[in-house]
Amino acid sequence: MSFTVYLSGEIHTDWREEIKRGAEAAGLDITFTAPVTDHAASDAAGDHLGETESGFWRDHQSAKVNAIRTRTLIEKSDLVVIRFGDQYKQWNAAFDAGYCAALGTPYVTLHAEGIVHPLKEVDAGAQAWCRTTDQVVETLRYVLKA
Amino acid sequence: MSFTVYLSGEIHTDWREEIKRGAEAAGLDITFTAPVTDHAASDAAGDHLGETESGFWRDHQSAKVNAIRTRTLIEKSDLVVIRFGDQYKQWNAAFDAGYCAALGTPYVTLHAEGIVHPLKEVDAGAQAWCRTTDQVVETLRYVLKA
Amino acid sequence: MSFTVYLSGEIHTDWREEIKRGAEAAGLDITFTAPVTDHAASDAAGDHLGETESGFWRDHQSAKVNAIRTRTLIEKSDLVVIRFGDQYKQWNAAFDAGYCAALGTPYVTLHAEGIVHPLKEVDAGAQAWCRTTDQVVETLRYVLKA
Amino acid sequence: MSFTVYLSGEIHTDWREEIKRGAEAAGLDITFTAPVTDHAASDAAGDHLGETESGFWRDHQSAKVNAIRTRTLIEKSDLVVIRFGDQYKQWNAAFDAGYCAALGTPYVTLHAEGIVHPLKEVDAGAQAWCRTTDQVVETLRYVLKA
Amino acid sequence: MSFTVYLSGEIHTDWREEIKRGAEAAGLDITFTAPVTDHAASDAAGDHLGETESGFWRDHQSAKVNAIRTRTLIEKSDLVVIRFGDQYKQWNAAFDAGYCAALGTPYVTLHAEGIVHPLKEVDAGAQAWCRTTDQVVETLRYVLKA
Amino acid sequence: MSFTVYLSGEIHTDWREEIKRGAEAAGLDITFTAPVTDHAASDAAGDHLGETESGFWRDHQSAKVNAIRTRTLIEKSDLVVIRFGDQYKQWNAAFDAGYCAALGTPYVTLHAEGIVHPLKEVDAGAQAWCRTTDQVVETLRYVLKA
Amino acid sequence: MSFTVYLSGEIHTDWREEIKRGAEAAGLDITFTAPVTDHAASDAAGDHLGETESGFWRDHQSAKVNAIRTRTLIEKSDLVVIRFGDQYKQWNAAFDAGYCAALGTPYVTLHAEGIVHPLKEVDAGAQAWCRTTDQVVETLRYVLKA
Amino acid sequence: MSFTVYLSGEIHTDWREEIKRGAEAAGLDITFTAPVTDHAASDAAGDHLGETESGFWRDHQSAKVNAIRTRTLIEKSDLVVIRFGDQYKQWNAAFDAGYCAALGTPYVTLHAEGIVHPLKEVDAGAQAWCRTTDQVVETLRYVLKA
Repeated sequence: MSFTVYLSGEIHTDWREEIKRGAEAAGLDITFTAPVTDHAASDAAGDHLGETESGFWRDHQSAKVNAIRTRTLIEKSDLVVIRFGDQYKQWNAAFDAGYCAALGTPYVTLHAEGIVHPLKEVDAGAQAWCRTTDQVVETLRYVLKA
Repeated sequence: MSFTVYLSGEIHTDWREEIKRGAEAAGLDITFTAPVTDHAASDAAGDHLGETESGFWRDHQSAKVNAIRTRTLIEKSDLVVIRFGDQYKQWNAAFDAGYCAALGTPYVTLHAEGIVHPLKEVDAGAQAWCRTTDQVVETLRYVLKA
Repeated sequence: MSFTVYLSGEIHTDWREEIKRGAEAAGLDITFTAPVTDHAASDAAGDHLGETESGFWRDHQSAKVNAIRTRTLIEKSDLVVIRFGDQYKQWNAAFDAGYCAALGTPYVTLHAEGIVHPLKEVDAGAQAWCRTTDQVVETLRYVLKA
Repeated sequence: MSFTVYLSGEIHTDWREEIKRGAEAAGLDITFTAPVTDHAASDAAGDHLGETESGFWRDHQSAKVNAIRTRTLIEKSDLVVIRFGDQYKQWNAAFDAGYCAALGTPYVTLHAEGIVHPLKEVDAGAQAWCRTTDQVVETLRYVLKA
Repeated sequence: MSFTVYLSGEIHTDWREEIKRGAEAAGLDITFTAPVTDHAASDAAGDHLGETESGFWRDHQSAKVNAIRTRTLIEKSDLVVIRFGDQYKQWNAAFDAGYCAALGTPYVTLHAEGIVHPLKEVDAGAQAWCRTTDQVVETLRYVLKA
Repeated sequence: MSFTVYLSGEIHTDWREEIKRGAEAAGLDITFTAPVTDHAASDAAGDHLGETESGFWRDHQSAKVNAIRTRTLIEKSDLVVIRFGDQYKQWNAAFDAGYCAALGTPYVTLHAEGIVHPLKEVDAGAQAWCRTTDQVVETLRYVLKA
Repeated sequence: MSFTVYLSGEIHTDWREEIKRGAEAAGLDITFTAPVTDHAASDAAGDHLGETESGFWRDHQSAKVNAIRTRTLIEKSDLVVIRFGDQYKQWNAAFDAGYCAALGTPYVTLHAEGIVHPLKEVDAGAQAWCRTTDQVVETLRYVLKA
Repeated sequence: MSFTVYLSGEIHTDWREEIKRGAEAAGLDITFTAPVTDHAASDAAGDHLGETESGFWRDHQSAKVNAIRTRTLIEKSDLVVIRFGDQYKQWNAAFDAGYCAALGTPYVTLHAEGIVHPLKEVDAGAQAWCRTTDQVVETLRYVLKA
């Protein structure tokens, strides 16, 4: 049994690598996908299309280019893992959760206990709440191998 | 021409009333809907179902009851207005935006310029970004009456 | 705010009437629908189409006639309440739950604590688990009026 | 011609193995999938996510983890075989049947004659009712090879 | 409880009127719809769009105009009754049955016993097979009033 | 029988009024809808949201506001009439045709014979090609009253 | 470019083989699929499930088994070719056409000129009407290789 | 990461080859698809089906054959690039854009600045507007490799 898992959200720690290493160590047949995680590159994703006058339209142009990648990958996923760190707004992560919920694509969240309350709607639509990347890996191991 | 408009997001200012008053003044035929905006009531939405020991499951229980209302109302809307204030996480608002995007339900955002950058993915999926409730009302007036 | 609520499941107690009375007492604007709850009539729903020799085909013929009503009503519902009693197989109630889950129609369950474990998959897809009809009414009251 | 067949339901007899052996003997090109059939492991599927206070939330946590696997596999299936034994509630099996019905995924049931009547709604939505695993294999043989 | 019922198929007998009279006599709240049943008018449905040289393109032009009516009405129906007479090809009636099957719209067939065998695929997707208009009315009465 | 008909395309002649008058004269129960047909107002639809430096972003901002109206109205239509004049690009009209085709919403085209060839893909997806508004009215009369 | 083409309809002549030979001669990369074309086997498709009292239920049982194969194959097809001969009712072929139309799956018809009129609704939903298997092959060659 | 990209629109310059060469030079794993770009062959796509009396029906017949290819390829695409030249009507290109928008398939446009205004609705639904094939290639490179 193989799975495609999209890793959405926070880009400042190496949680994606931890999950990949854990899945590999467990011998799981998973293809991991992700958004572009290079922050500067992501902000500049649309710059090659032309200069824009204001910050809003630069962001707009880049975000629409990024969406080509992110929405396609989410729609091809069997499961999405959505990570919220303890700082930054990360509204795009919550956006991805809502997107999954409407599509019926299962997702799990990964975040610390301190932000349980503001994430209650996001968690309510999730299949699981994980506090550690080990819990994510164990969830994947169970789903694919048990 | 009549419309159903769902007002999602921030619950600490009276932006919903401003939009309703503006739409009424403009003579628009709009049915406005919204989540439960009484913060304490919303947090306690599931308490009548039984006590839970931890915060996580209390939140879980309440958020799922709230979702009966919010998802149904979003799915019945012609347009969703999503408000982000300048504080609080408001992940549920971003979640609603993603939900709309996947359903193909048009939405507009309402937020100050200072949070344009972290909202770029949310705005990229929106039909319009408004800074003031007057702009929302003018958008509604144009769409329904022009 | 008005709702259409389908009352699925057990037909040997008057739980449907309790919920209707409670909703009326609370002044809720709800249209309640239900399958045919006259057991003998339901079993004979297809008998006018011709005799069948075996029990299987008689059941088959009747169940398909009943499905004209039940599936249409479920698809027109904003919410489904699914009741499991403490006896009988009630596989049709679990079938309705799965049907709702795949459609994305929210449902709540109504059953005693003693059957929590065998109903865990059904409850996992539900928005709430109620033990009493009062809890169902309170859920409806919150969703529609809060 | 190849098929993916999900084997849902009862986990106390070796009916899955009988069908697999029969399909192999018939030289059929079928990928069989199934839920986790180790009862204790399935009940504990969410335990690694943290302790829960009550039986309800433990079941809830585990059932949602199991659903990552089961719903994905059902959605990838060409056909689902749903087995009902002569004891246990097996509401999850009826839930899967309703899920298939709403998706339009064809399913066949496998059960003894004694429970025809309580399963009439489930059977009415099925493409076939089999009493023995040989009949399931013969159905598969016909569909794939005839 | 109200229903919209589309009456598809044979246009040479007054079976539609029989069903309408029966439903009225039973006090049922049903809106009946139908294709254009004036044969000559139906064949000429596209003639106002311009002359065509061959029979094929005249038929093509008319059939596409008729489809504006028929597909819209079928998609708005709660139930479709499909009548096959004992002569004529009536491929359009079988086409409507397939259309309903793919949409998930329930339909019942109305035909004599003599054509059961060639209609087996059509009947297999139906919720009921009626031999008489009385049986159709009784089915409607049960579904709406029982 | 009532219908909702969206009138898409060319805004420089009074073809919409001709169709409305014809439908009224024929006593048809039709609700007609349309995009904003005041050219200057349509181009300025987003100007209240803020100034933009370049033509591209001004157009972008306005077109997205217009889409709130046009897509919602198309999705609520039973039929769309799409008019192509003998000048201007009218890519938005062809865009609407493709939108209808993908949704499965029936549409008819209204254009002169001289542009049949470049419109062949658009006409191939249409239910009818009309040269005059009288033909559109006659099509509507047949569909609703025949 | 590769295609999957389902060959539906008449089973008394070797039109399927003619198309396959033609496609092979043209070097086309097509996977052809079809229903079970052995008439006796198809009628007996459900006999292994148990005896049935009447012709109706025997047909019913077999037709539902056949549908496991036919609907799955149609849903996996890029194109469906539907053949009508000059005798037999072939309502299943018209049923398949309606099924394709509702799914949005393109289909072409293959039949003689003499039955153009009764097939007008079926042809109106088709991408092409072919009179000969050579025309079908040429259509496939163009679509895949031109 | 691999992608399937459909190249829609203008057929008089070699923009498709420029994009393919650029993607190859960048080492991108992309399968490019396209409509039949031989103008004369495309106009004659249905001629093998029989002569038609008028230009309209010849175009109709050919356009429907072409649609077998184009719609299937669009539906299988991860991204569509839609090119508008500075002459010709190219309504089929705008039709494809509307088709993508309704399906939720992301598309980017490729056209000169001079036609920004008439393309505003088409561009509003696009993920990016490119002026050069280099910009398309850079967009693809970012989406697939960044």
